[in-house]
Amino acid sequence: MKLEYRKIKLKLRHTFRIARSADDFRYSVITRLKIHDIEGFGEATPSERYGQSVESVEEALSRIKPRHLKSVDYIEDSLEELSSILGDQRAALAAIDLALFDILGKRVNTPLYTLLGLNPAKTPVTSYTIGIDTAEVIKEKVLEAKRFPVLKIKMGLENDYEIMETIRKVTDKPVRIDANEGWSKEEAYEKIKWLEDKGVQFIEQPLPADRIEDTRWLKERVKLPLFADESVQTSSDIPGLIGAFDGINIKLMKSGGIREALRMIHTARACGMKIMLGCMIESSIGITAAAHLSPLVDYADLDGNLLITNDPAKGVGEKRGKLILPNFPGLGVHVI
Amino acid sequence: MKLEYRKIKLKLRHTFRIARSADDFRYSVITRLKIHDIEGFGEATPSERYGQSVESVEEALSRIKPRHLKSVDYIEDSLEELSSILGDQRAALAAIDLALFDILGKRVNTPLYTLLGLNPAKTPVTSYTIGIDTAEVIKEKVLEAKRFPVLKIKMGLENDYEIMETIRKVTDKPVRIDANEGWSKEEAYEKIKWLEDKGVQFIEQPLPADRIEDTRWLKERVKLPLFADESVQTSSDIPGLIGAFDGINIKLMKSGGIREALRMIHTARACGMKIMLGCMIESSIGITAAAHLSPLVDYADLDGNLLITNDPAKGVGEKRGKLILPNFPGLGVHVI
Repeated sequence: MKLEYRKIKLKLRHTFRIARSADDFRYSVITRLKIHDIEGFGEATPSERYGQSVESVEEALSRIKPRHLKSVDYIEDSLEELSSILGDQRAALAAIDLALFDILGKRVNTPLYTLLGLNPAKTPVTSYTIGIDTAEVIKEKVLEAKRFPVLKIKMGLENDYEIMETIRKVTDKPVRIDANEGWSKEEAYEKIKWLEDKGVQFIEQPLPADRIEDTRWLKERVKLPLFADESVQTSSDIPGLIGAFDGINIKLMKSGGIREALRMIHTARACGMKIMLGCMIESSIGITAAAHLSPLVDYADLDGNLLITNDPAKGVGEKRGKLILPNFPGLGVHVI
Repeated sequence: MKLEYRKIKLKLRHTFRIARSADDFRYSVITRLKIHDIEGFGEATPSERYGQSVESVEEALSRIKPRHLKSVDYIEDSLEELSSILGDQRAALAAIDLALFDILGKRVNTPLYTLLGLNPAKTPVTSYTIGIDTAEVIKEKVLEAKRFPVLKIKMGLENDYEIMETIRKVTDKPVRIDANEGWSKEEAYEKIKWLEDKGVQFIEQPLPADRIEDTRWLKERVKLPLFADESVQTSSDIPGLIGAFDGINIKLMKSGGIREALRMIHTARACGMKIMLGCMIESSIGITAAAHLSPLVDYADLDGNLLITNDPAKGVGEKRGKLILPNFPGLGVHVI
């Protein structure tokens, strides 16, 4: 086997401001894995929130030796072993997981969605994310997002009410609110109550990740569904969220890739929860991989590739927000 | 598509006595499904315990129309729809699910375990089941089961102590005890305490299926792990068993096939539970299908085909109990 990786700088169309950060670019580490002459692509977009950086991804990938990836066949074995070698560097794990599923699909000449038995016509629409900004810029962004039937609105700073009022001046589209852990318990209660008649589908991560009991308190008192993002990384986090959240946001970079994302989907269903597939700021490699799973979920927020100006790959498309899966073997991405 | 099915009578080597029944034969409905010239095999072995009979399986299968199985590609869609059409007739659903996975594998010319990314060398050993019987016959059966490194012992009638004492006179192999809901709370406590130093791996379904609180009480007081069988049919049953059971017994005929069995495996892992793959009295069609999933689980009790004398199919083998997966596309079963 041969594993190569290179760091690239994904340039954001607009400064991307959320409750805890603001960025003009984000790094991604693109992996190219070759086993028995079949080449697979993957991607790791490290997130500080989960103790990851380009350096930690590269260090993690450097721990992978040819003996860990002897066969294209036994993905379960390979990923189980890599998972213990890479520990909490799950973005790095995702970069390998994606490449392995890409190779598996290419080996049997079949798109990943078909290997998973999924109907590509059943993809959801993706929301388009509007970062925290001034009223002026938010108006501009909403116009840019004209073709998307649903928006994701970032909140969690001091101008939450202003943001929502600005949005409702320019559009009556349904929106999803993401507070990124930015609210306190009482603040969340007050703001969600205010949001209840404003065309909101659900609220993502109102409170800090570990405030599960406070979220339970909140859930009993508000009508809007609550979705976990920072509170859930892998499947074993899910049972403990029963009664606190109505749904979860699964991201390949949190889960460590497709294998664990599938486990999370099944676990969340068994726990009676709704499922959204989300993303980091990623290229079309990561977004396409997630899109292959999207016929299994209720909501998609797979717009990371749409928020950048220098996407190094081509894969999933969208038509008025509806995800269009590439009909090629494996992930079906073309890397430039 | 073309769906054919026929009833066959599986003849048991010995009268099969468990806490609630005794049989000299069991029926199976073998399905043969053809889509776009690819043929897949499945099997339904109805269980009275779950409101199923040969008649209910045949009636359920007769509800399936060509429009429900238009494509070999979208197994997820097809099974989701069939699942709602067939309701609780999940043995019938399994018969179609198995045939669809068989076809999927054949279509891409790959064994099912490879499609699932599994290493066939990682199969567990299967236990061999000793039904409830007189001391004399139990001795005979234990001798017959000589090559199996672990036994499953049925209990739940009046002679439990005698059975265990008989077993320990002739072998010191580890055993698994299955009470099939046959004990009361106090009886279970007393018997499990007595069994604790007798080389027992775990206790299956000590109390009636719906006695979850009593099982919780029991689990706090005994050292041996408790496994759910009758208490768990599909993945949504699993989160409610946390704290009551240490593991679950997944059977394709309870789950409705491979798709739901995979969901159960992932959910059980996320809930921190151990997993056994079990079976009904089945031919090598059903047993082989389950065996393909077995590299994902901790324990196997896949001996249904070994307990009958007229197996209509050839598939998975075993060597001193270790399951040997057939290296052919799909399920890899040959039906006689």
